[in-house]
Parts: sequence; structure tokens; C-alpha cells
Amino acid sequence: MEEEVSKEALFRNRFDKESESFDLFLEELQNALREEKPSGLKKLLEGAHPADIASLLPSLEHEESLLLFRSLPKEDQAYTLIKMDDETLSLFLDDLEIEEISEALTYIETDETTYLLTHLTSARRELVLSKLSKRDSFEIRSQLGFRESSAGRLMSKDFATARLGDPVRKAIINVRKKAKEIEDIYQVYVTDEDGILRGFIPLKDLFLSPINTKVEKITNLDVHSFHYDTDQEEVARMFKKYDLVSAAVVDDLGGMIGRITLDDVLEIVEEEASEDILLMAGVSEDEKLSTPIMQSVKRRILWLNVNLFTAFLSSTVVAFFEDTISQIVVLATLMPIVAGLGGNAGTQSVTVVIRNLALGDLTVSNWWEAVRKEVMIGCINGIVLGSITGCLIFFVKGNMTLGLVVGAAMLVNMLVASLSGSLVPLLLKAIKIDPAIASSIFVTATTDVCGFFFFLGLATIFYKYLII
Amino acid sequence: MEEEVSKEALFRNRFDKESESFDLFLEELQNALREEKPSGLKKLLEGAHPADIASLLPSLEHEESLLLFRSLPKEDQAYTLIKMDDETLSLFLDDLEIEEISEALTYIETDETTYLLTHLTSARRELVLSKLSKRDSFEIRSQLGFRESSAGRLMSKDFATARLGDPVRKAIINVRKKAKEIEDIYQVYVTDEDGILRGFIPLKDLFLSPINTKVEKITNLDVHSFHYDTDQEEVARMFKKYDLVSAAVVDDLGGMIGRITLDDVLEIVEEEASEDILLMAGVSEDEKLSTPIMQSVKRRILWLNVNLFTAFLSSTVVAFFEDTISQIVVLATLMPIVAGLGGNAGTQSVTVVIRNLALGDLTVSNWWEAVRKEVMIGCINGIVLGSITGCLIFFVKGNMTLGLVVGAAMLVNMLVASLSGSLVPLLLKAIKIDPAIASSIFVTATTDVCGFFFFLGLATIFYKYLII
Repeated sequence: MEEEVSKEALFRNRFDKESESFDLFLEELQNALREEKPSGLKKLLEGAHPADIASLLPSLEHEESLLLFRSLPKEDQAYTLIKMDDETLSLFLDDLEIEEISEALTYIETDETTYLLTHLTSARRELVLSKLSKRDSFEIRSQLGFRESSAGRLMSKDFATARLGDPVRKAIINVRKKAKEIEDIYQVYVTDEDGILRGFIPLKDLFLSPINTKVEKITNLDVHSFHYDTDQEEVARMFKKYDLVSAAVVDDLGGMIGRITLDDVLEIVEEEASEDILLMAGVSEDEKLSTPIMQSVKRRILWLNVNLFTAFLSSTVVAFFEDTISQIVVLATLMPIVAGLGGNAGTQSVTVVIRNLALGDLTVSNWWEAVRKEVMIGCINGIVLGSITGCLIFFVKGNMTLGLVVGAAMLVNMLVASLSGSLVPLLLKAIKIDPAIASSIFVTATTDVCGFFFFLGLATIFYKYLII
Repeated sequence: MEEEVSKEALFRNRFDKESESFDLFLEELQNALREEKPSGLKKLLEGAHPADIASLLPSLEHEESLLLFRSLPKEDQAYTLIKMDDETLSLFLDDLEIEEISEALTYIETDETTYLLTHLTSARRELVLSKLSKRDSFEIRSQLGFRESSAGRLMSKDFATARLGDPVRKAIINVRKKAKEIEDIYQVYVTDEDGILRGFIPLKDLFLSPINTKVEKITNLDVHSFHYDTDQEEVARMFKKYDLVSAAVVDDLGGMIGRITLDDVLEIVEEEASEDILLMAGVSEDEKLSTPIMQSVKRRILWLNVNLFTAFLSSTVVAFFEDTISQIVVLATLMPIVAGLGGNAGTQSVTVVIRNLALGDLTVSNWWEAVRKEVMIGCINGIVLGSITGCLIFFVKGNMTLGLVVGAAMLVNMLVASLSGSLVPLLLKAIKIDPAIASSIFVTATTDVCGFFFFLGLATIFYKYLII
């Protein structure tokens, strides 16, 4: 029965970049492109999904990839564009003719069209829009008018509706019409005569009801809807909380203007988490492997310069104690331990707090609980690590006071780390700054300064017991 | 028309934890619970979604929350359990009677049942399983047998199928039967007589085809399926790449045994991203706000102890140069700058590489590109920041050699940072260790040791030019 495996599955096996046959496949493909044999090309790409083509393109020379792209059916071209990484997409949108782009756009939904258009220069965008039908270009212009990262930008304008007063028969006819354009219909939205959203019907309920039933009889009133200006993070949170598959987007009067589906939300969730990870390390939120080097450098070096400033700050604290250090050089070898562990403990607190803020588990109502917990943890960590470090140093250096000074400085610095590590992100959030951007630099600067200050300060106080 | 807003929407507005009326609502609820007035309680909770109830419970005393839970209809109880955070769920599963749990389980799908059962102690799990029907308990036992984080664990055994040779009419009857148990049917899976997966039919195509059509005529052969042992990360990657809404899970022979839907994938994506963020900071991958303090301390302190070890390592490097430092104390104030900036640059590289690995953009085929890019960035950063720092120190301290030594040490350390920051996660990945766990500690240890060594080493070589 093996011969019944689909062509798509066969292609995917062959095409797997990690597989050994991939190089061979690539070579054959390049030969077919060079010889301009459409039949050979077609055979090689039989069963390829647009996502496969899109991930294949960066392995080819740019000229080759354009040739390959142009050999695809128009509909596949559109989906291939959507699946490209940002860099490849920009290259393609620059090199394709305006007509080629506008033609491809007719095959995809409005949210995808909007996505592609935001990657064009504004001059070329105007040209593409002028080639579209009046209706399409009006719809897309209005969607481009919504705020970035809002429900309005995210939504698709292609959805199936039914009227409260209609019989099920009429609603099914409506779905039948829409079914050709829209691939993923799971629900039919129900509106009143004025287009105001009233509820929804799961697709299966619609088809399983007698055709003369009134739509309102089977309408589920508990429909989830978002105002078009709702932030996409909020949209994602609601989808997760209520296990939604799709939701309506409404205007100020409650009129239905679009729908958001779970696959849009998947992208947001991934994007937001990626942003947090990258921002915390001082890397641009959209840095990818394909980002040009100078663009990567720009953001990273800005962050490192801020770091340089805070490093000089803590260096000044150390300079304040130069006299003590020149007498007891061992302090210079130990001070990075106190500061460094404080920094790491602070980063732990920052990370947990930022993550809980992002997941929506931490809100204004329970921030105090989080701070208390972090400080308790800081206290325990400080006692345990302060004791271990103090004892180690006592055994190695044979000076009890030195051990006590290191241990005490570490304990205090751990408390500072947990307090600043939990409060800084909360404060930044309160003044509407993304805590992922700036928290860790504030916190490590604090633990560096405090670590050096407590350690060298205590050492200066107990100076005479430290000279061996 | 305002009165037609659904009860659910009304409840959600009132219940919003951030809203001012929440405290009032909570008070009324507690009164109703104390007075044991089921009617008052019912009215207060009218329109509440199980997810709302679940997020409400932690705001109540445990006794109150049990009372509230028991006042819910059995079906809602089941969904409320699923929506609880881990801590609340464990408390509930400990305090509920075995009968209450097993009764609730009859209302939910097998993947959800499996999820709940993994939170029970094994003794209580056996008791619950013994209360279920033979068929149910057999199915759940077999699902518990799959590897954790595998497609088999993730899948639901509730799905709709049709046979290749059947007419559409028969397939619709099948869906009608299943529709009562399963909420989210989007596709009907098609198998042959032996139960081997052959394709799928989107729900709308099934209903829009003439009822005497043979199923095989409208079957889409390009069905995505996963072997039950596929890792959940791989499942998520395929869902994203091919924009899947649901996919089949098959056994070794290709027989269909379950299906995975997009909402399961959403949870994985969020989980994996959270894991990476937390692991990189040395926090347990599942640490939540609700995790007991000692459990949080356990993992964090382990990490800090590893840190303590590497800190002692770099401290030893510094100790090696004690003589130089005792003569030129200013070195002690500057050495944290060189080491610190190297650590931050290394963390940037680590983060970008780990993120690209997680997103699947970085593979064995292009690892060299990533390393080259990072080293180029390290080179540029090193030249720019080395120059800035060198000049600053020359102006402040008036010693050209000191400026040159700091600048040169910083340049070399930035190169070390970018090289180790990109290679370490790739190497860990190659030997099958999660790079998020251990990369940053290796890299910052390297930049600390190298930073101190290059800086103090150079200072020792140019010793006589540094004494002012």
C-alpha cells in the first residue's frame, strides 16, 4: 500500500534540510533552473508546500530564487511570499514587478495582504494598491489605518455571517458562497439587521440543524469579541484563557468588521516571548539570523554603552576604596565574587517577575506577594551562600574576619538583589516602560554598586583585623 | 438594544480582577458562601466561564473555594479543574473525594483527563481509574504510557473518522454521533478498512458535498500526521510551518490513534518560550508565582552555587596578579569594566543563538554563518567600545599606556565573548544538552576569566609604563 503515500509527504522527506539527500536535491534543482526546463522543475517541486519553497529560497542564489518563484502558479506565489523570512521577503518585494505583486495579492486574505504591504516602500505600496480593485484597495487602506499590534491590524475581513431572522437554509447558502474564498471556517457569526454582532454558530451545529430552523434558535450568545483598538497581547491572553478558536472584531457601535483566528494568536504568543528574551539581553526585539550585521550592532552597542556607563559608576565606588585595597590586595580578588553573585541573583528575580507579568499571573492586586516572596528567597540565598563563601574564605585565607566580611556583604547584597530585582520591573511596568528592556541593567548596576560598597566598606571598617 | 448583551459578557466585566467593583463582588460572594444560599450564589456566578471561576478561586479561603467548587454543575467542575493553576489544582485534587474526581472526568476529553491524572498521587490515581468504565480507564492508562512531552501524551482520542469507501451520508451520520461528545470538530479523518490513515476532509467540504458522493472522491491526501513518539517541540514547529489547525497521531503501522489541535500547540509554544527565559536565568523551568518558596530556592541556589564556583575560578586568576595590583591599585577599579562588558556582549550572542535554535532558523546547515556573524559583531563592538573606554581612561587618568591596555583587553575579550557566546550553545545542542540551561554560565565564566587575564596580563607586561 506504500505507493499511496501522498506526493506532499514524499517531497517533505526529500526536502528536509537536515537530511543527506538535500544537497543532491539542491543540485538537481539548480541544474533545472539553469537549463530553464519547466518540466524538470515541476517534477522536482511536485508536492512542495509554499512553506517548503519559502524555506528553500535562501539556499539558492538570488537570481535562481527569482526564477524558481516565477515558475510557481500565481496562488502558490502569494502563499510563498507570506511564508518567507523578513530578509528574503524584502528582497523579493523590491525585485518583483508591481503587476506580479498585485496579482499575487488577489489570492490571499486581507490580513495577509496588509502584512505584505507593510513590507513595501510607501511609493511601491501606492502603486500596488492602485492596481487592485477599488473595493479591495479601500478595504486594505482602512485596515492599514488601524494601530500597529491592534486587533484591527490582526483581523481578517473574510468571514461568514448569518442574520438572526434568517432560516438555517439561507445561512448555509452563505457559507457555501464564502467557502470558496475562505479556507478555515469554523464558526458563522450572527448579526442583526444593522450588522451588530449578536452571537455565533459552530459550523457543525449549523449543518446538523433542520434547514428551516431560524438562525436565532441555534445562536450561541456568548460570543467573544474585541474592539478593533484592543492590544494584540490582550487578544492573545483572552484566546488562551477561554480556549477560543476564533473571535470577532467590532467597531465602536458593535458592528462586526473582522475575525481573528487561533493561528494569528500563535504568532503573537511566539513573538511576545521572543521579544522578552531578546530585550532582556539588550538585543533588538526583531533581531534574526538574517538581520544585516550593522543593524544588529546598532542596538547591541547602544546597550553595551549604557552598560559601560554603569560599569564606570561601580568602578568609581571601587576607586573610593583604593587606599584599603592597596593595603589588603586580597580584597581585589574577592570583590568580583560578591558583586557577581548579587547580579545573578538579581537577574533571577527580574526574570521571574517579567515572565509572570507577561503571562498575566502578576497584576496590581498581587504585586506585594511577589516582592515578599523574592525578598524571602533573597534572604535564604544570602544566608546559605554567605555562609558557604565566608567559610571557604576562612579556610583558604585563614582570616576569620575576612570570611565574616565577605559573608555579611554577600547576605546584604542578595537582599538588595531580590528587592531591586522584583521592584524595578514592577515600577517600570507602572510607568508604562516595557520591563524587559531596562530592568536587568538597572538591577545589575545596583548589585554591582552595592556589592562593591558593602564589601569594601565593611573591609575598611574592620581594616585592622584584616591585615595578616 | 443594550439589554441583549450576553450574561457572560456582563459577568466578565464585573469579574475583571483589575476593576474596582471586584472587591465588592468578592465580598458578596463570600457572604453568599457563608450563608450557604445556593440561589444567591447561582445569581452571582451567572454567566461565569470555568476559566473565570478557576482564576477566582485563589482569591478565596481554601474552605470557601471548595464550597464554591462543589456548588458548580459537574460539567463545569471538570473544566474548572483544567483551568486551575498548578498549586490550586494540587490542593483541590488532594481534598476532593475520589468519586467527585472520577465523575468530573467523564465530561472531558482523554488528553485533559490524562493531564489531570498526572497531578494526582499514584495511589489516588489508581483509585480514580478504578471508578471509571473499563473502556475509559484502559484508554487513559494507554495514554499515560506514552513518553512525557510526546505527541501521544498531547493528543486527544476523541475525533471523527470516515472510511474511504463510505458515501458522504454515512460520514455525516458519524460526525453527528461524535458531535455530542466533541466540541471542536474541524476535520474528519479518513482511514481505510484497517484503520490506516489515508487523508482528511475539511468539515465544510463534507457538508457541502452531495450525500451520495464516495468519501474517497473528496478526501485530501495531504494529511499531516505525527508518530506518537514525536517530540512536542517538533509538533509545534510543523503546526507553525504549515499553518495546521489539527493533525493526526498514528501508531507504528500508520493506524490513526488520536489528533492534536492548534490550542494544544499554543500551550507548547508558550511553555517552551517561558522555559528558555527562565532556564537562561538559572530558574526552574516551571517556577511560577505560586511555587512554594523552598522549591524556588532549591533550583536557584543550585545555579548560584555553580556561579560561586566559577566566580572563585576567576578570583584565582586575579590572585595570580596580586603583585601587579598592589603596585598599581587603579587596575582593581578598572578590571570589573573589562570583565563585565565582555559578559554582557557574550550574553547577547548566547541569547540570539538560543532563540534562533528554538525557532528552528538555526540548524546544522547554517551554524557557521551564525558564528561568523557573531564574531564580526564582536569585532566591531570591541573596536568601538575598546576605543571609547581607552580614550576615557586616558583623559581621566592621564596615562596613555593604561588606556591602550584597557582598550586592547576589551577588544580581545569581546572577540572571546562572541566566539564563546555563539559556539557554546551550538556545542551543547550538538551533545543534546538544552543550551538554555548551561550556556550563559559557561560564557560569562569564560569572559570573566579571559577579561581578568588579558587585562591584568597586559598590565603586568607594560608594568613600568603604568606606574605614574
